[in-house]
Amino acid sequence: MKMKALMKTKPERGAELVETDVPEIGPNDLLVRVRAAAICGTDNHIYDWTPWAQARLELPMIFGHEYAGEVVEIGSAVSGWQVGDLVAAETHIPCLQCYQCRTGRQHTCENMKIIGVHVDGAFSEYARLPVACAWKLAPGTPFELGAILEPVGVAANGLFKDRIDGASVAVIGCGPIGIFAQQLAEAAGARKVYATDVNPYRVNMARRVVPDAQVMNAASEDVEAIIAEETAGRGVDVVIELSGSGPGTAQAFSILAKGGRVSLVGLPSAPITLEMTSAIIYREAIVYGSTGRLMWDTWYRVANLLQAAKFDPTQVITHRFALDECDKALQLTLSGQAGKVILAP
Amino acid sequence: MKMKALMKTKPERGAELVETDVPEIGPNDLLVRVRAAAICGTDNHIYDWTPWAQARLELPMIFGHEYAGEVVEIGSAVSGWQVGDLVAAETHIPCLQCYQCRTGRQHTCENMKIIGVHVDGAFSEYARLPVACAWKLAPGTPFELGAILEPVGVAANGLFKDRIDGASVAVIGCGPIGIFAQQLAEAAGARKVYATDVNPYRVNMARRVVPDAQVMNAASEDVEAIIAEETAGRGVDVVIELSGSGPGTAQAFSILAKGGRVSLVGLPSAPITLEMTSAIIYREAIVYGSTGRLMWDTWYRVANLLQAAKFDPTQVITHRFALDECDKALQLTLSGQAGKVILAP
Amino acid sequence: MKMKALMKTKPERGAELVETDVPEIGPNDLLVRVRAAAICGTDNHIYDWTPWAQARLELPMIFGHEYAGEVVEIGSAVSGWQVGDLVAAETHIPCLQCYQCRTGRQHTCENMKIIGVHVDGAFSEYARLPVACAWKLAPGTPFELGAILEPVGVAANGLFKDRIDGASVAVIGCGPIGIFAQQLAEAAGARKVYATDVNPYRVNMARRVVPDAQVMNAASEDVEAIIAEETAGRGVDVVIELSGSGPGTAQAFSILAKGGRVSLVGLPSAPITLEMTSAIIYREAIVYGSTGRLMWDTWYRVANLLQAAKFDPTQVITHRFALDECDKALQLTLSGQAGKVILAP
Amino acid sequence: MKMKALMKTKPERGAELVETDVPEIGPNDLLVRVRAAAICGTDNHIYDWTPWAQARLELPMIFGHEYAGEVVEIGSAVSGWQVGDLVAAETHIPCLQCYQCRTGRQHTCENMKIIGVHVDGAFSEYARLPVACAWKLAPGTPFELGAILEPVGVAANGLFKDRIDGASVAVIGCGPIGIFAQQLAEAAGARKVYATDVNPYRVNMARRVVPDAQVMNAASEDVEAIIAEETAGRGVDVVIELSGSGPGTAQAFSILAKGGRVSLVGLPSAPITLEMTSAIIYREAIVYGSTGRLMWDTWYRVANLLQAAKFDPTQVITHRFALDECDKALQLTLSGQAGKVILAP
Repeated sequence: MKMKALMKTKPERGAELVETDVPEIGPNDLLVRVRAAAICGTDNHIYDWTPWAQARLELPMIFGHEYAGEVVEIGSAVSGWQVGDLVAAETHIPCLQCYQCRTGRQHTCENMKIIGVHVDGAFSEYARLPVACAWKLAPGTPFELGAILEPVGVAANGLFKDRIDGASVAVIGCGPIGIFAQQLAEAAGARKVYATDVNPYRVNMARRVVPDAQVMNAASEDVEAIIAEETAGRGVDVVIELSGSGPGTAQAFSILAKGGRVSLVGLPSAPITLEMTSAIIYREAIVYGSTGRLMWDTWYRVANLLQAAKFDPTQVITHRFALDECDKALQLTLSGQAGKVILAP
Repeated sequence: MKMKALMKTKPERGAELVETDVPEIGPNDLLVRVRAAAICGTDNHIYDWTPWAQARLELPMIFGHEYAGEVVEIGSAVSGWQVGDLVAAETHIPCLQCYQCRTGRQHTCENMKIIGVHVDGAFSEYARLPVACAWKLAPGTPFELGAILEPVGVAANGLFKDRIDGASVAVIGCGPIGIFAQQLAEAAGARKVYATDVNPYRVNMARRVVPDAQVMNAASEDVEAIIAEETAGRGVDVVIELSGSGPGTAQAFSILAKGGRVSLVGLPSAPITLEMTSAIIYREAIVYGSTGRLMWDTWYRVANLLQAAKFDPTQVITHRFALDECDKALQLTLSGQAGKVILAP
Repeated sequence: MKMKALMKTKPERGAELVETDVPEIGPNDLLVRVRAAAICGTDNHIYDWTPWAQARLELPMIFGHEYAGEVVEIGSAVSGWQVGDLVAAETHIPCLQCYQCRTGRQHTCENMKIIGVHVDGAFSEYARLPVACAWKLAPGTPFELGAILEPVGVAANGLFKDRIDGASVAVIGCGPIGIFAQQLAEAAGARKVYATDVNPYRVNMARRVVPDAQVMNAASEDVEAIIAEETAGRGVDVVIELSGSGPGTAQAFSILAKGGRVSLVGLPSAPITLEMTSAIIYREAIVYGSTGRLMWDTWYRVANLLQAAKFDPTQVITHRFALDECDKALQLTLSGQAGKVILAP
Repeated sequence: MKMKALMKTKPERGAELVETDVPEIGPNDLLVRVRAAAICGTDNHIYDWTPWAQARLELPMIFGHEYAGEVVEIGSAVSGWQVGDLVAAETHIPCLQCYQCRTGRQHTCENMKIIGVHVDGAFSEYARLPVACAWKLAPGTPFELGAILEPVGVAANGLFKDRIDGASVAVIGCGPIGIFAQQLAEAAGARKVYATDVNPYRVNMARRVVPDAQVMNAASEDVEAIIAEETAGRGVDVVIELSGSGPGTAQAFSILAKGGRVSLVGLPSAPITLEMTSAIIYREAIVYGSTGRLMWDTWYRVANLLQAAKFDPTQVITHRFALDECDKALQLTLSGQAGKVILAP
């Protein structure tokens, strides 16, 4: 059987819409009819063929990994799933046998593979999904919501390293994950949420989607002074760093209260230089590296907040395209003038 | 100088409104002009002269310990306070020298004295307050709010043993502390709050003050069945036990999820019998004894949520009396047909 | 193929040594040649046909669940295992699909089955072991050590609810699990270990195996007074309750420091009555129900301490029997005049 | 009354032994007859008059802050102390009124002053000690032990951010604090302790004092390769960074297991550059800034381990001098050819 798929075929910018075989599944896999797939920064790297992508991908490769769909076939050794179930995908494929996997940390598996990077992904009509990466959606869940649970989980994993209730929280970066982090912090009882970005489109998007947060344009506002004023000079309790930039990372600490915590989530493309003594040591800061999502603690936590109608992450979706408009879609996301962009294969 | 005070003078039911000397203060004390004092269950024990009270009080004693007022005199060794500051009282007087006090747990001091039980309290125009028990209120704070921060803190200490964000929470008991617990759980990002009582007055009060909570009358509703239904049979993540009763305590566990936690706050007047194997062991429950308030972590946590306008505990105040109406006030609180009752000396 | 097995065939005291078929394995199972199996209290219940056993077992059933052996056959869907691998068994069979299993708590699975209770166990030459319950032993590991890792893990799960380093620890009960708990506490940096039992055989065994612990006979020594004296009246930081008895449970709290923690591990056969106010609430005690072992955090923790040669649990093994001496072996364990007893099928 | 004191009088290298007044104490102070004072790196900065010292000290100033002695006079408002009590000094003077001080974190007080930096210290016959900084020593405690409890506490605060039992621990830096950290890790049940330095004197000192640790000379041994080999490629669970150097800090992460933790204790004199993505984020490392000692949790923790005779920090003391040999003493410590050096005023 054939399907349409967005495939990276050549080591250069771009991608190709091809007709290819529907994937065959193994005994521990599901076959999913993809209904919505979201574009992630990783996909931009792949489309753009940056050094990051060149170092990781073996071509040809179908990319795309944030997706939801319908189960159409079930591997012979799988139990607990039925044809017709709705499913969202966890991107990280764990080996289930290493120390990390056997102590509740499959998301940092020692032998991890990533969907859409190491194995074929989901910008296609059908996708093979290891059952170890399958999150069952309640009947009736909108596919677009299912498709963005993975990046919502990135925000949740960073935010929920420890308690949020009553805390003041600053989010550095107002892309989709930054907005999810703000929504989650509000939903989880934060006392006050602050957010910054230097891109006016994103600042405006945050102001629209999270009206109770205090969103600042770091290019024109004195973030440190404002937060010092707001917190009687003490700084915020929690910072989520999503920019991956040197200034963003330095600011994460300069606005942090003594004894506060910073979650580093955004991936810097270059080394970062920090005054450790003042930033971390004298401040007794706690710094958490954060990647992926706890399987499945993070997913349950997000589902619980969604079930209680505490927030709506689909407000971050700004554009939708068909699969054959992929060039337009990817160029839009690269421009920074979009929230979350959905492809509907 | 003389003042009016409600004094327990005789070892029998009742109390006497007397004229007595304004207290003299020591170098580490404040003298407070009491503006609002709330009636606590402890005060009922004292008024009623129950065995609990008989075992603890040496008469005569001015009782009452939940209060707020204005600082009118400052001890010679005190710094950081000024005449005219508003103040609320922490009831537990720590020695500041024992292991508990020196490791952040003054509220379980090994040599603790309690205001209104071991030393004169605050049902009076003036009260001596050790500075180690003084919580500064922001200018303009209503005195009635200040007077009930202490019992709000009882709820907060029980609730915040660990994180609340995203959790399902059940509160057993809908007296003032139970309602505070429900309000705090909502403010702190609980997914859903359940509450029970057997007193219709209190059930109604909870429904009025915490409309988003699901309040059940345990005398007429099948609490276990309802919670099982609500939680897909898993039970709730967090229970706050305030009834101090055998059935309440048993129910705290029967509605608890595996791995969930129970905070025991209500003081049983008799031993409690439990099936430990099913209630606690196979369930891997975590049980927290909870008393008083962390000094001052609990107070800051409550102040932060108040500052963010996340909840209003004064909605629990139902009656106000002058000091000379104390008999009426205490009989009302003993009847169970009141929320929080305030005396204004 | 046939094998010898100790089978419970009739609803009465005793067990029968039978010849029966070697079990067939499914795609996710291992077939194990059992080399050493330890007798657990559960096995005594089954042999004795107590109400506990009557309520749980469907006969006929091969019992026994603490065991180690050699892998002789591997299910078709299993990866990561080879014929000849040494293996120890985790007793709890998780469903891997429920909330508990998907959040790192397979040991309290909502659909748990237990080896030797709900499915055939290991007092037999061969046993079927779900790979989800298989713990790989390093080549050369003594089978007797492998066979007792499961009860060592019971002690470890109870003890390691939180940190032990620098803590004073009391262990109530000096059966094998009690001695393991004492050894683990010493290995994990406890400041001082106390232990009690009322059975002189067990008191002596503890004194022999854990010479640095202070072992008391609770029938003849005033445990509370001794611990008060030893701890300047503060009590111990950590108690592990293994007796499952009313007096043992009450004592767990009466010797506990303010803010200390108690792990309830021993299974009471009847309800327990406690003065909650003094035992738990005013003391701000933390009580942990503890059952089974974290999969696989507890197993790694024990393996790490073993690898560092911090302790030797095989010192608790006092007797060894062949499978056809099972009556003698089970009567010995029922008598309380033995440490751990090994059957070698 | 007059006393001898080592005073920094001029803004240049060196210090002066002067005769000056015995300090007068306030109502909340103790007067201490100093019996042993240890030389800290801070004292080297002051003696050497580095930019660090120039930025902080107002001259003249008596320096030295790690000390123990005998109480000879007691302030009027102090309770719980008697003339003749032995005392060790905590260096950080807390205000006791700020948010940090009121939530158990006096060691990161918002208004902190430091003994021997902001107020006169203890290289003198007598010293004024705020009672808020006084740690009572058991009668008979050697003064030299008392004098080094402060730096032992620096190691303990860094090490005990979370549990150590069963963990593999690497200590980067084998000066006195590094050796204390190794001793404490062994005492607290670490599975295995690794340590590195590039100074052969310190490597040898560590090998002598902590024979069970694996001490490596990072200048000649391939630390990463050795630790990878030792830990099956996983890395160590806990790293304590004491070098404050760029290479030491980078190595702290390159030898760290996924999900492991690093305590940053050594104070870098220049910014540090790190590849955050690989060092922290993908590794989900936890980084703790660590300064000073928890008051008084850290002190109790150390006292408990000392009382249990788990380690002997005085083995790190290599030299003793009289106060008038201070130049020799300070030059020795600056040379790096000494362990802890004691002055006996």
